[in-house]
Amino acid sequence: MLDAVRAELGEHGYDGLTTDGVAARAGVHRTTVYRRWGDVGALLADVLDAAGDDDWQPPDTGSLEEDLTALNQEIQTAMTAQPPVMEALIAASFRSEKAAQAQRRLWEDRYTRCDIVVGRAIRRGELPPDTDARRLLIAATAPLYHHLVLLRTPLDPQLPRHAARTATLAAAAGAFARSPSAPGS
Amino acid sequence: MLDAVRAELGEHGYDGLTTDGVAARAGVHRTTVYRRWGDVGALLADVLDAAGDDDWQPPDTGSLEEDLTALNQEIQTAMTAQPPVMEALIAASFRSEKAAQAQRRLWEDRYTRCDIVVGRAIRRGELPPDTDARRLLIAATAPLYHHLVLLRTPLDPQLPRHAARTATLAAAAGAFARSPSAPGS
Repeated sequence: MLDAVRAELGEHGYDGLTTDGVAARAGVHRTTVYRRWGDVGALLADVLDAAGDDDWQPPDTGSLEEDLTALNQEIQTAMTAQPPVMEALIAASFRSEKAAQAQRRLWEDRYTRCDIVVGRAIRRGELPPDTDARRLLIAATAPLYHHLVLLRTPLDPQLPRHAARTATLAAAAGAFARSPSAPGS
Repeated sequence: MLDAVRAELGEHGYDGLTTDGVAARAGVHRTTVYRRWGDVGALLADVLDAAGDDDWQPPDTGSLEEDLTALNQEIQTAMTAQPPVMEALIAASFRSEKAAQAQRRLWEDRYTRCDIVVGRAIRRGELPPDTDARRLLIAATAPLYHHLVLLRTPLDPQLPRHAARTATLAAAAGAFARSPSAPGS
């Protein structure tokens, strides 16, 4: 069923997603879909929740900059994949509160799983021990989303590495230190 | 007419925006709206183009970090204003190619106007002369958009300054230097 939602979403976008279309593609009766999910927002929320229910782990290359670069490359690949399911899901989150909540859960889950990237860099001595992992991870990844989702500029193959290096340099300069007496604060 | 579009958008969101509603609010006949704009996407494109046709200039405080902080505060204020016209315009850009193109023009115009923030910092000796202004500006502002538009996390009053400081520290460390032999590249 969720595969059918993803396929319909990729083919028709959020505007073309209907419970009838999903039912037809999945080969079930429309009342089955309607009874279980009720509306398209609930279907999408389940797609998003299912996406978070996997064993994905962030890259582990041995250096912070390389880990963040590989992470950004994964983001760029996912956001530019055809059919554009990710973009359709983001578009849907502006119009369905259930989809928006599911998307918040997915972002939270993914950033939490990435905490280990920062933890490993701290243990290797690459970062101050009081580095705020979430702030660092968002600084490293936000330019990708900004370009791909909002600015919609042509794909820049250097961006994953540039954004990763920027965050790494800022982190080394103390930009994400929690302590108010840390350098740069 | 464009005020009517903004008011309808703020009240009903993109889903509730119709040429009929805009005509009624503006007190003109619906055929007038239909003949001139044709559809809602074209109306929105004009709202966006009008938003770019102003004399907005970025803050000029005397320091890069303060300029970027003030810029981020403006972004946070605009994105959280009620009614949420900015969010409705972004949502619309996922569904109307005309609105998406107008939004790309607006982003491009705003970032170009902000180049002077980086130029002034270079002249004050705060940044290397070959600093890539656009990359720096996007790094400084992207976390705001990521939080406000995609992550939809509760408003963080420290974020404008934190994101500005992160970009400033990274810039000082050479993160945005165009020359391949610059530090950090």
